[in-house]
Amino acid sequence: MDFTKLNGLIPAVVQDATTREVLMVGFMNDEALATTRATRFATFFSRTRNMLWTKGETSGNRLKVERLLVDCDDDTVLLLVSRLGGGNVCHTGERTCFFKELDGESPSSEVPESSR
Amino acid sequence: MDFTKLNGLIPAVVQDATTREVLMVGFMNDEALATTRATRFATFFSRTRNMLWTKGETSGNRLKVERLLVDCDDDTVLLLVSRLGGGNVCHTGERTCFFKELDGESPSSEVPESSR
Repeated sequence: MDFTKLNGLIPAVVQDATTREVLMVGFMNDEALATTRATRFATFFSRTRNMLWTKGETSGNRLKVERLLVDCDDDTVLLLVSRLGGGNVCHTGERTCFFKELDGESPSSEVPESSR
Repeated sequence: MDFTKLNGLIPAVVQDATTREVLMVGFMNDEALATTRATRFATFFSRTRNMLWTKGETSGNRLKVERLLVDCDDDTVLLLVSRLGGGNVCHTGERTCFFKELDGESPSSEVPESSR
């Protein structure tokens, strides 16, 4: 893995292994990645708190890593996960962190398209 | 959008709108995001070349943005795209940049799990 491009961090995309929904993006340093690989629970490096955190360690909504993929140039990982606990990944209580539509089909439209 | 956390950049996750496959992760500055929103073709900021690049501008494998989502804290975007041209997103010729398995189910396993 190449941790040099973002000062020791790589983006980690979390995708539901069953629904294929993208749930969140976090960052990992080498220790977070090693912990994730060893425990099979998604663990990130918090840039604001400057420490490792295992997703769901407080809420119980942990993310069990079913598959761990790396991209072509070794600077990003993709975690296919099962959602444990209540299953809501976002701290707002939503299932996914990506619940806001930035644009609809028309670039000038201010009306968000409902998704489902 | 919050571009302050990564020196003017945000991660941009690209997902196939139909198959839900995660295809690649790039970075955008505010200009790349504005260009993507205006043209509806995924445009990134190249950290190595220090310039904007529209995915597929050479190969023809452009990515038409069907939906543009932003995460809960406004520092990451998710692009749901249609693949144009040959449809292979990775520069290696693969459909997705995430074609390498880092681990199988067992952390100590060196045998990649075949995916499909």
